[in-house]
Amino acid sequence: MALIALLAGDGIGPEVTHEARRVLEALDLGHTFESAPVGGAAYRQTSHPLPPETLALAKRADAILFGAVGDPEMDGLERALRPEQAILGLRKALGLFANLRPAKMFPGLEDASALRPEVARAIDMVIVRELTGDVYFGDKGRSITHTGLREGHDLMRYDEVEVARIVRVGFEMAQRRKRILTSVDKANVLETSQLWREVVNEIALDYPEVKLTHMYVDNAAMQLVRNPGAFDVIVTGNLFGDILSDQASMCVGSIGMLPSASLNEWQGTCGLYEPIHGSAPDIAGQGKANPCAAILSAAMLLRHSLADEASAQRIEAAVIAAIAGGARTPDLGGTHSTAAMGDAVLAAL
Amino acid sequence: MALIALLAGDGIGPEVTHEARRVLEALDLGHTFESAPVGGAAYRQTSHPLPPETLALAKRADAILFGAVGDPEMDGLERALRPEQAILGLRKALGLFANLRPAKMFPGLEDASALRPEVARAIDMVIVRELTGDVYFGDKGRSITHTGLREGHDLMRYDEVEVARIVRVGFEMAQRRKRILTSVDKANVLETSQLWREVVNEIALDYPEVKLTHMYVDNAAMQLVRNPGAFDVIVTGNLFGDILSDQASMCVGSIGMLPSASLNEWQGTCGLYEPIHGSAPDIAGQGKANPCAAILSAAMLLRHSLADEASAQRIEAAVIAAIAGGARTPDLGGTHSTAAMGDAVLAAL
Ligand SMILES: CC(C)[C@H](C(=O)O)[C@@H](O)C(=O)O
Ligand SMILES: CC(C)[C@H](C(=O)O)[C@@H](O)C(=O)O
Repeated sequence: MALIALLAGDGIGPEVTHEARRVLEALDLGHTFESAPVGGAAYRQTSHPLPPETLALAKRADAILFGAVGDPEMDGLERALRPEQAILGLRKALGLFANLRPAKMFPGLEDASALRPEVARAIDMVIVRELTGDVYFGDKGRSITHTGLREGHDLMRYDEVEVARIVRVGFEMAQRRKRILTSVDKANVLETSQLWREVVNEIALDYPEVKLTHMYVDNAAMQLVRNPGAFDVIVTGNLFGDILSDQASMCVGSIGMLPSASLNEWQGTCGLYEPIHGSAPDIAGQGKANPCAAILSAAMLLRHSLADEASAQRIEAAVIAAIAGGARTPDLGGTHSTAAMGDAVLAAL
Repeated sequence: MALIALLAGDGIGPEVTHEARRVLEALDLGHTFESAPVGGAAYRQTSHPLPPETLALAKRADAILFGAVGDPEMDGLERALRPEQAILGLRKALGLFANLRPAKMFPGLEDASALRPEVARAIDMVIVRELTGDVYFGDKGRSITHTGLREGHDLMRYDEVEVARIVRVGFEMAQRRKRILTSVDKANVLETSQLWREVVNEIALDYPEVKLTHMYVDNAAMQLVRNPGAFDVIVTGNLFGDILSDQASMCVGSIGMLPSASLNEWQGTCGLYEPIHGSAPDIAGQGKANPCAAILSAAMLLRHSLADEASAQRIEAAVIAAIAGGARTPDLGGTHSTAAMGDAVLAAL
């Protein structure tokens, strides 16, 4: 009996997490749910995107099911008060350093991808992205130069412990899959990347069965277009991971299908689970959003935080069956509403 | 009568610049050529990737035709001596802050792209990348934390003048094209990006005819897969530009077809022109490399540095005609050697 924190957030967040909750409840696992405001929605209520009560619930819960944050009406706010600070703050406060983002072609959805079907069909990778360091969390600010110019700066940095723990997650993941690990950096330009590469090579000694390749980030962005099926596991820093994981998910076609997990230890119990899509304010409240990414995030929650692999697989199979049965939200070229897509998954359960 | 510096560099650099020179000479424009070693080749001769004589020639010349640098045998060298430092050093020393990278589908090459033909066919954009600032040139180094850990850091930074001049290049370029400018940043996380966005909005007031959109870099990486044909001009910083321009060029299919220009002022006279592909050590010296990117770089050189639009267009038309006539190097699925491809372009001139 676990406590699941529901942080639905902004835009389509509430709609899609509602369907994910319905699916979890249908499994009748006895877990309890508690909701709290986050992001722009929380700012409207409390003048802060991550109120203390929300953070307290997140810490108390066994796992967090997260919707999305982001609200264009708040673009003018200072950075510390913007909706995105909620997710950055949660990652940092809970030490969620390991972001796992699977990208796999769903049978039947080849048409949704801009890639040729034979290229898209081969995609089956996991991107392991570091989530609590890098230029995201280094010293940052604005100042005036001695010649009177406005300037902005953000420090990119990693220490060896931060690198080592995420790289181990990458190797462990590769070990359980096809044993091919690609570490992505920009070591020909960045010192941070040179440390990264050094640490990767040290840890590689513990995983002789895994085939390791180092790749520059610009080349990785090319190879993800040219032949994404060649990747198994990619491990990289926070910024490069942000870019490459979104690119990879679009290769699969609809980003409405892809979940993610953010963990504070490899296979640890505390985790935050969220669809990789954003708050999509343009379609919010219209029942058009695809709830599959949120539903599959709930499956990852069961697998990683509640050690319930069987239920996770049941949900995943139900989503695949619903798609195979022809259920399609507008992003997949169909006419199913958010609720109808949820119904299709429930029916397949 | 201009002086063109030929810096052929490593790997396939000498082979492809040789063909570009043949094409320039065939036009009989009276320009003179002077060569100097650069990159790994220069390191072998002089123990430095950018010897003073090479830099002096680059400064003296009216324009630089550059091949490629990069040599895996030198991965072990300290950063300051690696081949890549030659191109970074040239950019900085000559103030080449504006990198123009057109990415356009060549008629007849749709099959080379991993994208669906209808998606690939629509691609016609220019990426304008800042080239002398950002995390590439900020303070960088390695140190030991107070708890004894190795760390690496690189400072990302821009001041308003650095941002303004590249953003103006972007607006001017858009003005001459479809008047659609996408500025790419990560303003929801980075202070550097917030300054960037602020300056873009200020300069936009001078270009009311240009339709400006701000896009986060992760979203841009997605849209470049989903619908690359929607972009006209993209303007962005050094690091994001490195990643996105390589991604965009792979969307077009063969990176063996794409040239680039690095300018020190908008439509200024000093410029460095290079294919966007690298030194490709795996195929070096085998006559397999596609010289089209180098030949098209020579066309850009005539256009931007020597104000010879007519000759530039003659070269571009000849490359298109050669491709239409069926000439294909191995990267395009054919069997033409580097020299045979050069011959085909010369024949079409
Ligand atoms: C909302 C934003 C701060 C966030 C990030 O950049 O990490 C998002 O893009 C993501 O990938 O989860
Ligand atoms: C060789 C390398 C330093 C360079 C860069 O990152 O700028 C290259 O990737 C490029 O895009 O010209």
